[in-house]
Amino acid sequence: MKIREAIKGLNMYQAGKPISEVKRELGLTDVIKLASNENPLGCSEKVKKVMMEAAEEINLYPDASNFELKRALSEHLGVDTKRIFCGTGSDLLIRVICNLFLDPGDEIIMGGVSFQRYEDSAQIMGAKTVKIPMKNHRLDVEAMVNAINEKTRIIWFCTPNNPTGAMVTKSELFSVLDRIPEDVIIVMDEAYYEYVTDEEYPQTLPLIDKYPNMIILRTFSKAYGLAGLRVGYGIANEEITKYINSILGPFDTNLIAQAAAITALKDKDFLKKAVETNTTGREYFYREFDRLGLEYIISQANFVMVNVGRDDKDVFNKLLRKGVIVRPGHLFGMNNWLRVSVGTMDQNERFINELENLLKE
Amino acid sequence: MKIREAIKGLNMYQAGKPISEVKRELGLTDVIKLASNENPLGCSEKVKKVMMEAAEEINLYPDASNFELKRALSEHLGVDTKRIFCGTGSDLLIRVICNLFLDPGDEIIMGGVSFQRYEDSAQIMGAKTVKIPMKNHRLDVEAMVNAINEKTRIIWFCTPNNPTGAMVTKSELFSVLDRIPEDVIIVMDEAYYEYVTDEEYPQTLPLIDKYPNMIILRTFSKAYGLAGLRVGYGIANEEITKYINSILGPFDTNLIAQAAAITALKDKDFLKKAVETNTTGREYFYREFDRLGLEYIISQANFVMVNVGRDDKDVFNKLLRKGVIVRPGHLFGMNNWLRVSVGTMDQNERFINELENLLKE
Repeated sequence: MKIREAIKGLNMYQAGKPISEVKRELGLTDVIKLASNENPLGCSEKVKKVMMEAAEEINLYPDASNFELKRALSEHLGVDTKRIFCGTGSDLLIRVICNLFLDPGDEIIMGGVSFQRYEDSAQIMGAKTVKIPMKNHRLDVEAMVNAINEKTRIIWFCTPNNPTGAMVTKSELFSVLDRIPEDVIIVMDEAYYEYVTDEEYPQTLPLIDKYPNMIILRTFSKAYGLAGLRVGYGIANEEITKYINSILGPFDTNLIAQAAAITALKDKDFLKKAVETNTTGREYFYREFDRLGLEYIISQANFVMVNVGRDDKDVFNKLLRKGVIVRPGHLFGMNNWLRVSVGTMDQNERFINELENLLKE
Repeated sequence: MKIREAIKGLNMYQAGKPISEVKRELGLTDVIKLASNENPLGCSEKVKKVMMEAAEEINLYPDASNFELKRALSEHLGVDTKRIFCGTGSDLLIRVICNLFLDPGDEIIMGGVSFQRYEDSAQIMGAKTVKIPMKNHRLDVEAMVNAINEKTRIIWFCTPNNPTGAMVTKSELFSVLDRIPEDVIIVMDEAYYEYVTDEEYPQTLPLIDKYPNMIILRTFSKAYGLAGLRVGYGIANEEITKYINSILGPFDTNLIAQAAAITALKDKDFLKKAVETNTTGREYFYREFDRLGLEYIISQANFVMVNVGRDDKDVFNKLLRKGVIVRPGHLFGMNNWLRVSVGTMDQNERFINELENLLKE
């Protein structure tokens, strides 16, 4: 059997443990998951209603053109529908971008601690990943751009960055954009866009005209609370969008996802509440980590990275046995750190209490 | 911008027109769609209930391991879970199989009139497609296997074949399997498996042990009535399954799809009714086409190809204006033919009546 060489070393993505699995394995009944950056408020009630209506015609294929969803996004963003593409979460869109631009031997550049799927998706195409070390736990945008060579095809700016939570600022971004060659694709992965509160965050939509090599990715999985439905979208110039649509399967965005996403965009009250809950939760974490004397990274996303000062696997396992699922930092090459998603205030307090008890041991 | 050469000639898949689009374009209110091989009975009521329950936790990511769905499929098929993989419809699984086995310059073999996505997915990987002419509108399995050369990596048997509906028989398949080299992957695309009534159809699951290079694809989109949800699955040996799972995104099968598919497997009454409706409808079409003196292809799927003896684009457009959407044969290189999905008996009769009226013109 001739498996492609490029595939042989591919790592299996290690997803956060589902609640059901933790309950099953540990015999627990009351488990909270602050591991996968999910929306603790669920999703909009209006969206649930639309999902149930869509379920009535689930025997039909989804609209291959995403006509209504693109129209809704177009209005929401103020961007022409010809510049919008939709897919099975940002995850699939990352793979499709690699399909479009990466030949064997090509290279991508990403942060040393950033979203692992960039590397996995490049590897599927036989391309090599160059990881640039972080600077104070932040993407070193300057060093990333300096690392561009003739083999570089894509540079990935995950901002806010998963798993560290820090953003790339306006001044950082604007100081490097003009130095990125036109044949290098700049991907702004803005999965956590809606949670950003810092005014130094750059608005990238207006940049698509000036930088035809820029692609922006966003998602309904986070602030809109639709992770289970798998719907992400992207914005790019017409040419790139056309090619991405030609690679995407005709029915990658499911029928319920299309209907739900349209309604999610309209329920601004839900979004506002989700963002407020998140901002309050982040600030609560900062205060508590300060009180406990723990180092943490200021986050613009819906999770915070905290240095617990001891083996993160051990702390992760002890928290698990208390029914609190988080993400241990060694998965990201950050030993002694935990990534904790912002939950409801009850969940946040439960995590802090359990962590404090553990650290006293 | 350096778009990969392989991508430049990629054709956009032309999906059947959605009902909403036809209504919009032609100002019609009563439109039926017999174009996309969808289940005219909808889906199981039990599945709808489960979908609505799953919608309540749509803020959570799907189980990345598809644990429960694989377990249900394992029981249903009598196959170990380590041999089962799941994805966003067979469509994504086709792309992933190409990711796994095709390097630039490699070749695939498929039928001259078969599922177009095999060629598109090969092209994304820079591989070439060799199409073997049909023999009496059926896959010429003998000629396909004779065409294997040292560049061949995958041979695609779509059976029943989309869009012609004919199957590969036991004797045809068994006469060639031993002549396919071990380093050529044999894909049995059995999307329409549940609709087959001919006893000469080969059962392929027991063949996986003998042919470690065989992959079987099936789907919940057709007989189970879940096209809108996007869930397909495959069966292969452990090694291939492991690699396919490493290429698949962790969350490609959405949360509602996983729950719905498990319940769909259990509702045997719905499946039985769907298959009976289909068998009755196919036979009705045969009788009516005989009466109208039209050539057609005996089908084991939920659609029938019929030769209307005149320009299929013209007949397609005239039917469209009567509110009946079918698929014109020129899209498949079969001018003068139409592919019509089997609907409810009311829908079948409406199609026949409108067709008969047109042919009298």
